[in-house]
Amino acid sequence: MPLPLQVGVIGGTGPEGRGVALRLARGGATVVVGSRAIDRARQTVDRLRERAGELPLDAADNRTVADRCDVVFLTVPFAHAAAIVGECAERFRPGSLLIDVTVPVTFDGGAPQLVEVAEGSAAEHIRGRLPRRVQLAAALKTVPARVLGGDAPLDCDEFVCGDSAEARSRAGDVLRLIPGLRLIDAGPLAAARTIERMTLLAIEINRRYKVRDARFRVVGV
Amino acid sequence: MPLPLQVGVIGGTGPEGRGVALRLARGGATVVVGSRAIDRARQTVDRLRERAGELPLDAADNRTVADRCDVVFLTVPFAHAAAIVGECAERFRPGSLLIDVTVPVTFDGGAPQLVEVAEGSAAEHIRGRLPRRVQLAAALKTVPARVLGGDAPLDCDEFVCGDSAEARSRAGDVLRLIPGLRLIDAGPLAAARTIERMTLLAIEINRRYKVRDARFRVVGV
Repeated sequence: MPLPLQVGVIGGTGPEGRGVALRLARGGATVVVGSRAIDRARQTVDRLRERAGELPLDAADNRTVADRCDVVFLTVPFAHAAAIVGECAERFRPGSLLIDVTVPVTFDGGAPQLVEVAEGSAAEHIRGRLPRRVQLAAALKTVPARVLGGDAPLDCDEFVCGDSAEARSRAGDVLRLIPGLRLIDAGPLAAARTIERMTLLAIEINRRYKVRDARFRVVGV
Repeated sequence: MPLPLQVGVIGGTGPEGRGVALRLARGGATVVVGSRAIDRARQTVDRLRERAGELPLDAADNRTVADRCDVVFLTVPFAHAAAIVGECAERFRPGSLLIDVTVPVTFDGGAPQLVEVAEGSAAEHIRGRLPRRVQLAAALKTVPARVLGGDAPLDCDEFVCGDSAEARSRAGDVLRLIPGLRLIDAGPLAAARTIERMTLLAIEINRRYKVRDARFRVVGV
């Protein structure tokens, strides 16, 4: 697959979004950082350039990101995911790919908890709100934002699942631009039920071991 | 904690059970291999001795295992777990610890699937059938039986969860007899909802990558 001309990041101003944008831009993709307000997207691009130099980064509002990009990452808090996907629904390009990075974890009441999602996972929840002409994969759900946003090569495995082999394969082609990241094909979108829980487990391990960046590797592959 | 005089394995004749028995006996525990029929337990002990030499292994029927041992592993197919725990219920010693190794995965219809368990996980399902005087931990759910039953030091992490910190700690004390095994304290018993799904994910990864022993490590701990 040729590199997509544009990779978009809806919610690109948060920690995960900035990490995705920086890693992919360094890997050679042109990245359009999206936000509800274009000014915030521009600020993020400025800050990323201050930190990392002249990179192929652009800013846009989220709806314009959907308009312009064939591959779009969704890196918004899960509580806003359905609304933001809804706002962008008409703008997604036919045959485009959305890569869902959201995690349905809440800290309401202190301890981290999984948000109950009727569809079984955030990824499936988003699938139900996404136009059919858009493919969906889920990825990068277990890499801590702090690790993703850092400068060291990634040293963990990340699971990719999706609603078709093509969606997973396209997601893999883009994600392989990130050095050090090994992708594990976890199969159908329903695998997100496991992967999202693994993020919760990693958060629990962080709490118990007083560490900040627990993440996973698969042995034997 | 002093070594328990006896560690029992209910369902010790299956591949996981034989692996647990061999690893713990080599680690210095006295292991009572249990089966519904004592003759099968005896055969297993004989085979383990043929393979590994004179080890502190004994054979008993499952109910006698519950009677004799302060720490008991449950390594039966999930479909039989509730019935076998029920059969042994009256025999478990007060204050004893059951370590649940069952995985609610079925291959009915070809593809591996999680068995729907009303309680959320096999471990919680078993908790509901276990007398209150018995503590419960879950462990070794993601190590493949083939790896556990082999001779090489374990090279993966295994998650321990349980209904109390004491249950997890006691399980850890026994499991640390197994060389190479790093234990990760995953917290309350409900963490089994994640851990059991990870076994399903590992099986799916085995299928996709044509490997046999996918398993996990936690990075950052």
